[in-house]
Amino acid sequence: MNFDTPIDRRGQKQTKWDRMEELFGVSPADGLAMWTADSDYPTAPCVRDALFKAAEHGVFGYSWLHDDYLNAVAWWMHNRHGWDIDTDWILTAQGLGNAIALSIDAWSDPGDSVVIFSPVYLEFSVKIKKAGRVVNECPLKRAGDTYVLDLEDAQSRLTGREKLLIWCSPQNPSGRIWTAEELRQVADFARKNNLILVSDEVHHDLVYAGEKFIPMAVAAPEAQDISVYLTAASKTFNIAGQRTGNMIIPDPELRQAIKSRLHVLDYMPAGLSVAMITAAYSPEGAAWVDAQMAHLKKNRDIFDSGISKIPGVYAMPLQSTYLAWVDFSGTGMTYEEIENRIKKTAKIAPSPGPSFGAGGETFMRFNLATQTDKVTEAVTRLQYAFRDLQ
Amino acid sequence: MNFDTPIDRRGQKQTKWDRMEELFGVSPADGLAMWTADSDYPTAPCVRDALFKAAEHGVFGYSWLHDDYLNAVAWWMHNRHGWDIDTDWILTAQGLGNAIALSIDAWSDPGDSVVIFSPVYLEFSVKIKKAGRVVNECPLKRAGDTYVLDLEDAQSRLTGREKLLIWCSPQNPSGRIWTAEELRQVADFARKNNLILVSDEVHHDLVYAGEKFIPMAVAAPEAQDISVYLTAASKTFNIAGQRTGNMIIPDPELRQAIKSRLHVLDYMPAGLSVAMITAAYSPEGAAWVDAQMAHLKKNRDIFDSGISKIPGVYAMPLQSTYLAWVDFSGTGMTYEEIENRIKKTAKIAPSPGPSFGAGGETFMRFNLATQTDKVTEAVTRLQYAFRDLQ
Repeated sequence: MNFDTPIDRRGQKQTKWDRMEELFGVSPADGLAMWTADSDYPTAPCVRDALFKAAEHGVFGYSWLHDDYLNAVAWWMHNRHGWDIDTDWILTAQGLGNAIALSIDAWSDPGDSVVIFSPVYLEFSVKIKKAGRVVNECPLKRAGDTYVLDLEDAQSRLTGREKLLIWCSPQNPSGRIWTAEELRQVADFARKNNLILVSDEVHHDLVYAGEKFIPMAVAAPEAQDISVYLTAASKTFNIAGQRTGNMIIPDPELRQAIKSRLHVLDYMPAGLSVAMITAAYSPEGAAWVDAQMAHLKKNRDIFDSGISKIPGVYAMPLQSTYLAWVDFSGTGMTYEEIENRIKKTAKIAPSPGPSFGAGGETFMRFNLATQTDKVTEAVTRLQYAFRDLQ
Repeated sequence: MNFDTPIDRRGQKQTKWDRMEELFGVSPADGLAMWTADSDYPTAPCVRDALFKAAEHGVFGYSWLHDDYLNAVAWWMHNRHGWDIDTDWILTAQGLGNAIALSIDAWSDPGDSVVIFSPVYLEFSVKIKKAGRVVNECPLKRAGDTYVLDLEDAQSRLTGREKLLIWCSPQNPSGRIWTAEELRQVADFARKNNLILVSDEVHHDLVYAGEKFIPMAVAAPEAQDISVYLTAASKTFNIAGQRTGNMIIPDPELRQAIKSRLHVLDYMPAGLSVAMITAAYSPEGAAWVDAQMAHLKKNRDIFDSGISKIPGVYAMPLQSTYLAWVDFSGTGMTYEEIENRIKKTAKIAPSPGPSFGAGGETFMRFNLATQTDKVTEAVTRLQYAFRDLQ
C-alpha cells in the first residue's frame, strides 16, 4: 500500500496522461496531468488479485449481476456509510454519466429543464444539453471559505418546466460535505417542486479524517420515493475505466423505469468489472481506502500550504475528494493569463474552472491523487509561475 | 493451446454453468451445459497476457477507443476476411444485443416492423419486441440438408411497415455460410424495400477448414450505404462476458445516427475489454483461432457421427459456428418428450429450438465448444436417452 511508488502511466492508453497533450497542449514528457478524476497509483491489491485470478482461469463467458456483487455493495453501504439498502434496489449503469443520461431520458422530455447547483461537475450540464433538455443553473453562494445553498434564489429561478434535480454530494469541484440539514432542505426543495432527485455520491468514500459524509438516503429517508442514488467504486478504487456504477433506487416505480430502459438496451456490466467491484467492496478494500485517505491528506496539506503562499491564490478547504478547487481571482489576472501561466510556465494540466459553470470562471481544479513528490513539484511550479506576485 | 485440458467452470459466476440448474433444471453436478454460446476452454494466451499486464500495472483510469484498437480491428478484417475497412467506420456497442437495440431505436419507431429470417438467433425477436416493434418472421426454406432463402415468399409477407432487416451470417443456429450470390440477393431485397440492412456477422471467424465465409460488405459493396455490419471478438475468443462488439458503418449518415445515441448515453467500452480485443486481433490471436477450429472440427465430427446413429435424429452439416442444430422430428416424439429425455435422462442442457422461432419447433441447439471428452460423453448420453429407437 505504498502510494508513493513511482509509476509511469504514459503509453498505457489512458486518457489522463496519453491525451493531455492533445487536449491541453501540455506534454507528458515534462508536464503534470492534474485534470480528469482518476488516480496515478494502482488500485487495491484485492482488486488486482481478482483480476489475476480471472486471467488465470482464462474463461470470460457470459456473466450476470450476481448476489456476491449485490451483497458486497450492500455490505459497503452499511459498513462504510451506515446506509441500509435492499439488494433489490441496486441496478448498474455504464458509469455516472450513463446513469445521469438514463435518468434524464426516463423522467423528462426534450425541452424540459433540469436543475443543477453550480459550479458543479461539468458532465451534468453536458449530459442535459446532449439530451436536448435545458440546464437550469442555480448558483451556490460563496460564504466564508466555501459554498452554501441559496434555495430561495433557486426557487425564484424555476420556470415550471423542471423535472429533475441533479445533486452532487460530496460536492465536486469544491469537496464540500453537506450537512444533514442541508440535505433535508434539498430533498424538501425537490419534493415541493415535483422534481426527481438524482443524487451523485460517487466521491462518498474519499472523506478526510475528522469529516463525516452523510448519504442523502440517511439524511432524508422520507425522500426515497423521489430519489435515485448514484454510487461507484470508480473514484474510490481507481477503476473508472471499467465503466460500471450503481443506481440505487428504493422506489419500485422509479426503479422499473430505469430497469426497462436497461432491458431494452440489453445492458449488462462486463464480467471483469463486476468481479473487481465485488473484490473492492470488502474489508481488505476498506483498509486500502483508509490508507489511501491518509496519503491524500498528506498531499492535500502540502498542496494547501504551498498554494496559500501565493498571494491572490486560494484553495478551498477540502473535506473530501482529491480534487482541489483553487480560486485565482485574487491575482487580478484574466483567465487567459492564469491558464497560460499554469499550462505554459508550470506545465500543469488542471481541469479548467469555467467548464464547471457559473462561479467557476476564475478557478482551476487540481487532481491530487498522485505520488506526493508530484504534488510537491506542482506546488513548486505554481509558486514559480506566479513568482512576480510575491 | 490445449483445448482438452480439464477445466471446472462451476462457481465462476458465469451463466452457462452457474445458472443452468435454475434455468433448465439440469444440475451442474452431473449435467452438461451445452446451451449459451460461450466456450469451456480459456481464451488465447495473448488475450490473457494483456490482462496479466494490466493487472500488473494496476491503474484502471479513464481510457478511450484508441487507434491501436481501431487498427487491430481493421487488420483483422483485412487479413482474416479480405475486407478493407476505414477505421473511421468502427463504433463499439455493449455487445451484439445492444448493437441491435441501438439500430432498432435509430431507424424505426414503435409499431414499425423488423424483418428476420427464421429460425434465427432468438435475441433478434426478443430485442424487436422489447422495443415495441413488430417481428416480421420470414421462414427459411428447408432444402436438402440445410436452409435456403425464399425471398419471393418474404416479399409477399411485407406489410409496408418494415424498416429494418436483421440478417445473420454465418447463420445461427444452422451454421450455414451464405454464398456471395445469396448475400447479394438479400442486399437487393433490402434496397428494393427501403430496409436498413443490419448484418450480424459475429460468428464469422468460426469457419471450418474447406469453407469460406464472405462478409456482406465484400459480397454486396454497393449496399454499404444502407448497411450496418456487426462483428465481435466475443465468440471467436470466448470473451462474451466483456460486453464489447463492433458496429462497422461505412455510411456517414447512418454512422452519425448511432454515434449520437452512444454520445447521449455516454457509452464507452471498458478499458480492459478494449485491451483484450486489441490483443486478440493479432497474428498470435489468428494462430490460436486456427488451432481452435481444428479442435472444433474434431468435436463436430464426433458429434455428427454419434448423432447420426440415432434413428430419426439429424444434425445439420456445420459449415461454421460451434453450435450444432439438431432436428428430432424424425423420432415422432412431442417436444416435451424430446426435452424430457435430453434434460432428465441425458442430463444435458441445450438451447431449446422453439426459442429460435418458426422452424425450430422440433430442434435443439448443442454447443460443442468444450473439451472433446465432454462431447463424447454427450453423444453417449443422447444415444442412451433414445436407445429404444435403435
